[in-house]
Amino acid sequence: MSDVLDLTRDLVARASVTPDDAGCQALIAQRLQRSGFRCEQLRFGVVDNLWAVHGSDGPTLVLLGHTDVVPPGPREAWASDPFVPEIRDGVLYGRGAADMKGSVAAFVVALERFVATHPDHPGRVALLLTSDEEGDAIDGVRKVAETFRARGERIDWCITGEPSSTTRLGDLLRVGRRGTLSATLTVRGIQGHVAYPEKARNPIHQAMPALAELAARRWDDGYETFPPTSLQVSNVHAGTGANNVIPGEMQVLFNLRYNPSWRAEQLEQQCEDVLRAHGLEYEVRWQRGGEPFYTPEGPLRAAAREVLTRFCGSAPEESTGGGTSDARFIAPLGAQCIEIGPVNASIHKVDEHVAVADLEALPELYLALIEKMLA
Amino acid sequence: MSDVLDLTRDLVARASVTPDDAGCQALIAQRLQRSGFRCEQLRFGVVDNLWAVHGSDGPTLVLLGHTDVVPPGPREAWASDPFVPEIRDGVLYGRGAADMKGSVAAFVVALERFVATHPDHPGRVALLLTSDEEGDAIDGVRKVAETFRARGERIDWCITGEPSSTTRLGDLLRVGRRGTLSATLTVRGIQGHVAYPEKARNPIHQAMPALAELAARRWDDGYETFPPTSLQVSNVHAGTGANNVIPGEMQVLFNLRYNPSWRAEQLEQQCEDVLRAHGLEYEVRWQRGGEPFYTPEGPLRAAAREVLTRFCGSAPEESTGGGTSDARFIAPLGAQCIEIGPVNASIHKVDEHVAVADLEALPELYLALIEKMLA
Ligand SMILES: [Zn+2]
Ligand SMILES: [Zn+2]
Repeated sequence: MSDVLDLTRDLVARASVTPDDAGCQALIAQRLQRSGFRCEQLRFGVVDNLWAVHGSDGPTLVLLGHTDVVPPGPREAWASDPFVPEIRDGVLYGRGAADMKGSVAAFVVALERFVATHPDHPGRVALLLTSDEEGDAIDGVRKVAETFRARGERIDWCITGEPSSTTRLGDLLRVGRRGTLSATLTVRGIQGHVAYPEKARNPIHQAMPALAELAARRWDDGYETFPPTSLQVSNVHAGTGANNVIPGEMQVLFNLRYNPSWRAEQLEQQCEDVLRAHGLEYEVRWQRGGEPFYTPEGPLRAAAREVLTRFCGSAPEESTGGGTSDARFIAPLGAQCIEIGPVNASIHKVDEHVAVADLEALPELYLALIEKMLA
Repeated sequence: MSDVLDLTRDLVARASVTPDDAGCQALIAQRLQRSGFRCEQLRFGVVDNLWAVHGSDGPTLVLLGHTDVVPPGPREAWASDPFVPEIRDGVLYGRGAADMKGSVAAFVVALERFVATHPDHPGRVALLLTSDEEGDAIDGVRKVAETFRARGERIDWCITGEPSSTTRLGDLLRVGRRGTLSATLTVRGIQGHVAYPEKARNPIHQAMPALAELAARRWDDGYETFPPTSLQVSNVHAGTGANNVIPGEMQVLFNLRYNPSWRAEQLEQQCEDVLRAHGLEYEVRWQRGGEPFYTPEGPLRAAAREVLTRFCGSAPEESTGGGTSDARFIAPLGAQCIEIGPVNASIHKVDEHVAVADLEALPELYLALIEKMLA
């Protein structure tokens, strides 16, 4: 049994359903302390965060991950217990195997080997873990980043271990993410009876053309390095069930995923311009879930491309697609951020898994990258 | 204490919340039997219906009413108990005082006087009551009309006692009603994550332009005798609360109120044409709540105009506006239908009331009308 497989199994066996860390970080801190890392627990509310650092002056490279997992759903839906790691046909099954306890275990093994071989490496190498990536993501890396900003903690490079690969390990290098912006909208009308529409004001009738315009809008065409900005209406609720009553208000949630050609306040402004142009009486609460980030060509991205090309035999796709990750909180500190992790086909699903061969290749991959940056 | 006031109070004291008759019809049947009416109970499910007839061959004039009332809501909101009739300053308060136990009591008193004065009147005069007008309206007059149709019961003229007056008794003569047509619509999409809109199909985005088109459409301009046809979307529901999930389907209720320039099937067809033109994958269940009806100039309408003008001092407004009534089920039997009743300002509200003077004028008003038609 390899070291990384062993540790991954130990972590999967801990049912750390978000935001519960279930002892994962204590286990990791113990190991890294033995290797000379300085470990700091940053607990906010019910969320555990671990900051483990090795080295002193010079550039700082952070490996970023999370120990929490999404709920497994009903046990019966799984071929084996989601919290009892099981290997079948060279594949490790269990909740978190791919997202992202495998990457976290590989980080630990890579860091141990790196400091063993390079005890006097230049700069600092660090591990940052949270137990609140899959949940609200408020008391996790967001709060840690605020703390870092307040105490002037500098981060130069950040490698997130999110499962980024699409069909085989290392086929995709994530070099940025779109930002996310959410709106909670209430459209007010005047309640009435459907037989007397002239005495009422139907908030559904008022909202629909405005929302249709927002939904149909082509915000931008995207560009070489980023997919287009898009708006999705995710929730609409109005009416009490009776078909003879015009409701008094309508509740709407919508979300924008936007590339760095926009700032959140511009999008808020333009959305509200549309709402006002349609004469809506409304209230809107905006929630900025994370700015977009982008890591242009530079030493970290070049190193990652070289390492992935060597491991895969061909150059990775370099992408900014997909959802958000905790890197959105680290990038604003001035860090270059990339994401590299295992194949993501089974994440958040039943029978989540990772190929044992991929898992065993990961520590070497991360180690090669750390060595390129800090040795 | 007048006879009609007495009977109205007896009826209001019975808490006949729809579809419960609470003994109102038995009380009335007893009285009318004493006057020589043949009474038939037509009970369907939990709904009581009463059919009381006097006379034989010749045209049939039916007085149509309901003994059920809408729930009173919290007792504290009322100045006095909604089921304890109370007179304050010449006004009778209580649930059903205006809608429509006052009219029902006036019907009974008018019928008693009519057959007493005209024991050998031509044709038939009848009272039809239900306890399911304010509720589902399925086992009430709808079912009675089916029964009548099956046994070849003929109705020539029908006077509904719904509270039609707007500011003073008799200022409005209802001569028709729009039809009502309801749709329960499910729009199907493909669920997904907001960050990957290209892998999902947002049913809200698909439905909004179609619904906006239906809502904005000017179906007709109305005409001299009818208000325009109108469509109101009354309920929209989609989404689970999460703002990062594109929902898999959207639920919509909408309702049309339509004048006799349309048939229900035409409206269904045209709505579905719009849904299809927008490429929606949908299921729709149509519920035809009642065809429109209209009573053109003729003996009943002329008689009503003359009587109301005499009682009010000026000619009534002749209108087809507002909601639906049970007349929608009687009109298709070939009957001319009109509606005359007390002021409707307080109906379905707390402190429902009727002016005692109006209540005491009602039997004479109905009696004058019956005499015009059958004496
Ligand atoms: Zn993850
Ligand atoms: Zn009524």
